[in-house]
Amino acid sequence: MHDLQSLLNDINQTLISYEDRGVVADYIPELAKQDSQSFGMTVATVDGQVLSVGDTDVPFSIQSISKVFVLTMALGKIGDTLWKRVGREPSGSAFNSIVQLEHEKGIPRNPFINAGAIVTTDVVLAGHKPKETIGEILRFVRGLVNEDAIYIDEHVARSETQTGYRNAALANYMRAFGNLDNPVEEVLGVYFHQCAIAMSCSELARAGLYLANGGVNPQGGIKVIPPRRVRRINAIMMTCGHYDGSGDFAFRVGLPGKSGVGGGILAIVPNKAAIAVWSPGLDTNGNSKLGTVALEILVAKTGWSVFGA
Amino acid sequence: MHDLQSLLNDINQTLISYEDRGVVADYIPELAKQDSQSFGMTVATVDGQVLSVGDTDVPFSIQSISKVFVLTMALGKIGDTLWKRVGREPSGSAFNSIVQLEHEKGIPRNPFINAGAIVTTDVVLAGHKPKETIGEILRFVRGLVNEDAIYIDEHVARSETQTGYRNAALANYMRAFGNLDNPVEEVLGVYFHQCAIAMSCSELARAGLYLANGGVNPQGGIKVIPPRRVRRINAIMMTCGHYDGSGDFAFRVGLPGKSGVGGGILAIVPNKAAIAVWSPGLDTNGNSKLGTVALEILVAKTGWSVFGA
Amino acid sequence: MHDLQSLLNDINQTLISYEDRGVVADYIPELAKQDSQSFGMTVATVDGQVLSVGDTDVPFSIQSISKVFVLTMALGKIGDTLWKRVGREPSGSAFNSIVQLEHEKGIPRNPFINAGAIVTTDVVLAGHKPKETIGEILRFVRGLVNEDAIYIDEHVARSETQTGYRNAALANYMRAFGNLDNPVEEVLGVYFHQCAIAMSCSELARAGLYLANGGVNPQGGIKVIPPRRVRRINAIMMTCGHYDGSGDFAFRVGLPGKSGVGGGILAIVPNKAAIAVWSPGLDTNGNSKLGTVALEILVAKTGWSVFGA
Amino acid sequence: MHDLQSLLNDINQTLISYEDRGVVADYIPELAKQDSQSFGMTVATVDGQVLSVGDTDVPFSIQSISKVFVLTMALGKIGDTLWKRVGREPSGSAFNSIVQLEHEKGIPRNPFINAGAIVTTDVVLAGHKPKETIGEILRFVRGLVNEDAIYIDEHVARSETQTGYRNAALANYMRAFGNLDNPVEEVLGVYFHQCAIAMSCSELARAGLYLANGGVNPQGGIKVIPPRRVRRINAIMMTCGHYDGSGDFAFRVGLPGKSGVGGGILAIVPNKAAIAVWSPGLDTNGNSKLGTVALEILVAKTGWSVFGA
Repeated sequence: MHDLQSLLNDINQTLISYEDRGVVADYIPELAKQDSQSFGMTVATVDGQVLSVGDTDVPFSIQSISKVFVLTMALGKIGDTLWKRVGREPSGSAFNSIVQLEHEKGIPRNPFINAGAIVTTDVVLAGHKPKETIGEILRFVRGLVNEDAIYIDEHVARSETQTGYRNAALANYMRAFGNLDNPVEEVLGVYFHQCAIAMSCSELARAGLYLANGGVNPQGGIKVIPPRRVRRINAIMMTCGHYDGSGDFAFRVGLPGKSGVGGGILAIVPNKAAIAVWSPGLDTNGNSKLGTVALEILVAKTGWSVFGA
Repeated sequence: MHDLQSLLNDINQTLISYEDRGVVADYIPELAKQDSQSFGMTVATVDGQVLSVGDTDVPFSIQSISKVFVLTMALGKIGDTLWKRVGREPSGSAFNSIVQLEHEKGIPRNPFINAGAIVTTDVVLAGHKPKETIGEILRFVRGLVNEDAIYIDEHVARSETQTGYRNAALANYMRAFGNLDNPVEEVLGVYFHQCAIAMSCSELARAGLYLANGGVNPQGGIKVIPPRRVRRINAIMMTCGHYDGSGDFAFRVGLPGKSGVGGGILAIVPNKAAIAVWSPGLDTNGNSKLGTVALEILVAKTGWSVFGA
Repeated sequence: MHDLQSLLNDINQTLISYEDRGVVADYIPELAKQDSQSFGMTVATVDGQVLSVGDTDVPFSIQSISKVFVLTMALGKIGDTLWKRVGREPSGSAFNSIVQLEHEKGIPRNPFINAGAIVTTDVVLAGHKPKETIGEILRFVRGLVNEDAIYIDEHVARSETQTGYRNAALANYMRAFGNLDNPVEEVLGVYFHQCAIAMSCSELARAGLYLANGGVNPQGGIKVIPPRRVRRINAIMMTCGHYDGSGDFAFRVGLPGKSGVGGGILAIVPNKAAIAVWSPGLDTNGNSKLGTVALEILVAKTGWSVFGA
Repeated sequence: MHDLQSLLNDINQTLISYEDRGVVADYIPELAKQDSQSFGMTVATVDGQVLSVGDTDVPFSIQSISKVFVLTMALGKIGDTLWKRVGREPSGSAFNSIVQLEHEKGIPRNPFINAGAIVTTDVVLAGHKPKETIGEILRFVRGLVNEDAIYIDEHVARSETQTGYRNAALANYMRAFGNLDNPVEEVLGVYFHQCAIAMSCSELARAGLYLANGGVNPQGGIKVIPPRRVRRINAIMMTCGHYDGSGDFAFRVGLPGKSGVGGGILAIVPNKAAIAVWSPGLDTNGNSKLGTVALEILVAKTGWSVFGA
């Protein structure tokens, strides 16, 4: 593990000089405030090591990365029935595209585009009160890290609510096809709050460990989900985790991963480690630009690509 | 390896009773003649074992699986320049869709849909005579297996030529955008011939071994391509290898794979093995129905999924 | 005019025996209650004749026909500025499609698809209270006929509100692109109420007379809009008035017309007459099946097609 | 008629100073050679007047305007059976779009987009030799004007053949769906030749007279087609004659019209006149920019809009 820490340090050194850091998301004011110079990377291994470099204790808005946790919860609630309401194919279009929904009659292509995550949110909501459900999601994520400091940034949640017209369009559209059970406003309320979960790289990497360890959280040994489900979630992260840049991420990095417009990426090294990286500048597909480069270097040096040594 | 042979036998036994075998492709007469009861599966390991069950010595039309070999050759010719002419993202649409080409101005989404493979064929053709190029492709594939019996089925090639209007549309369309260098008829001639390569499961599994072994063909130790390129080809097989069913294949099987409408699938277990399976009946996405089931069972039993034990 | 009344009687006789009357809209319960045997047709001429046959005094839900009146009002409010926010091209897709909106960044193709009428409603609303605006629209329509009995069917309006998720999707989507000025719920409230205006054929034909008479309502001589604007509204009725069946209506009938899913059609014979026809059964494009046939016969016999004797 | 000549002179005077004349088509060299200052306009009335201003004796490439004549011929050959193979709805997309063809399984939306005209050409070809068919089309057009000087510009035809990859894509695509009966190359050969017909404004206006006169050519009294068919062709010209700018042309001009990328427009004033205008500069939809303005002025002054005085 000594070498791994050195490698992280090297990556940090290499990236410090990078000038082309992409563009910080500005669609909500809270995200726009982020410092484009921020960078952090944590590797948490299944055998208990947690190695970090950079700004890994600064909480950032995990945004779409929360879709992984909510998918996990939705599968826990209704199992494979979920797949009648959401597909598991890459979409071939932007994260907030509504075109596909019209062509496929209200069934989102996968749970990692916005429409799909609105469906998994609807499943988790399932007749409960929005506040309770938001609490339930937060408890689930806190439980994965055993860290009660993880919180929902209410400023971010409120901003999303105010500007979330495209998401409101998606939700109403699916409701028109009968693919939402709960009132649109309630589903969106929960959805916007889950996107506003704030975590540090250090926390996020540890939260993802169950996906690297056959469904068992190595911190405490709690079985979160069965191994088969882990493999499936990882598969969807691989094919759909980076919106319309998923193929490129698989090509360059070779790990299952999920990005968020806050600049975070959670990547899974099956049977070995979970990695969280954060750099707020985004590429044209809305994925962290430096985060991807950092992972690319890390995987090239460690041989961790799932596609071969 | 004894266990693996038993496993293959078990899979064969399990599948014999399957009645829902999908639909044999009928768009060209030669494929329609295939017996839907045919089934074969070969696992070739990087350490030299070749284990088979069923009809693994019967040559079948590998069809789109040839796209993997032609991509390998095209990358060998022009390297990463290729990616200016073809993307590496899942298409979110059918293998022969032309819609995406219009929206993205003649650049196919990836080298495993028809339009993309027409581009890689154009790269390999590169000013040579079609006959020479067809010979070159055939020699490349034969060389991977060291087996001169591998041949191009001229009946199939001719049938494709006669009914290949959609492919002619794709080629002309890309030519309109300047994304073909050679005359349309020549490119299509080579394309139709490569699709008509006939191989058995036993040959196909061995042909794929370089992708499981860091680019080195373990049968003879010849270096076909560098490791980094292997990982990238495997990545594209994972995200794009089964047309609009690629997400589902990743979800169910968890290996890089490429299917063909002849009913074959080539799957790669990075660092371990190459697998060829053949069953002519197809699912609605055009992928071998029983072939996928066989791989699903094999991977579940062996723990070979790249997404975790 | 004697002949015209005979012709209307003949048309009624001919159609009574028609069995294939299309399908009554059932997406809201109030519309589904309509009797598919209902049929009425009124011709109001610019020189003051009003000739009717069948159920022409029964109020029905004019639905999308109201888009003509709201377009007239919106043009009255902001003139040609309107065309920055809505196009005037046929959409080539269904009345409630959202695909086009994504491709064209929130600008609806024309004011007669739902999205376009939501924009014209937003223009008429323009900061007023929804109730006032609903009242203003109703007064405008009543004024065209000088008939205060015209009303908004609150049952229909409420049903639309409850099931109008696709319209809510369209409105939110346009709001995301900045193409709605007022709160989504307010715009939709007005929109759903205008669709619920109930009128009889006799009233509707007279209401449309200003479009047949250079913008002057011949009943009283009030100038509603200038002649140039009449021609333009008629042009949009011709190219866009029947959703994705507009070309077919022009081909078969040859008059500017606007249909509604309540089964009504308002057709304009420039310089001569306005025609209202009502038969609740719809064709696959959502246009009155018998209503179209009735107009086809009427125009063939009168030579009223704008496309030649 | 004295006034009409004055009006034409005024229009010419007004337009001479126009600087924004659009862009001359450059996709084939022959068209790019056209002088953007050229302008001509001829009005031929059903009672035998032919009034002209500007360059009305200079032959230009009528391009897509030929689609009107070939549609007339195709309807003459197979009547309404044609409508099983081509629609009559506006496409909502560009003249050479292939997207719609995929969504609607090889049936072009209307006979005035390229795909649709390839189908009508296939109907006219109908097993004959391409040369004969080209001759037949040319004879038909010559016959309308009684003018043997009308010719096919072989340079243009050859250029089209060399660069017509998108049209080749469309033709192959429709053939894949079984919507072409003749070999693709033969259909395209005829198609490219008909597009290359060269006529002057003076000739074109007279050629269109049958569409303004109930199907009877007033020059000689020959009955070309029945009145009902005239109305239908005019209807399609109105809704589909200017590609994705058809709605705008109806809105601004208010006459059935068909444009060509050579800069010509043929417009029909039902029961009154046929108008040909030519100015090579095009707008973004591929329609003559000044030609449209000229028609807009003419119609505003004459009250010839079909949509009302």
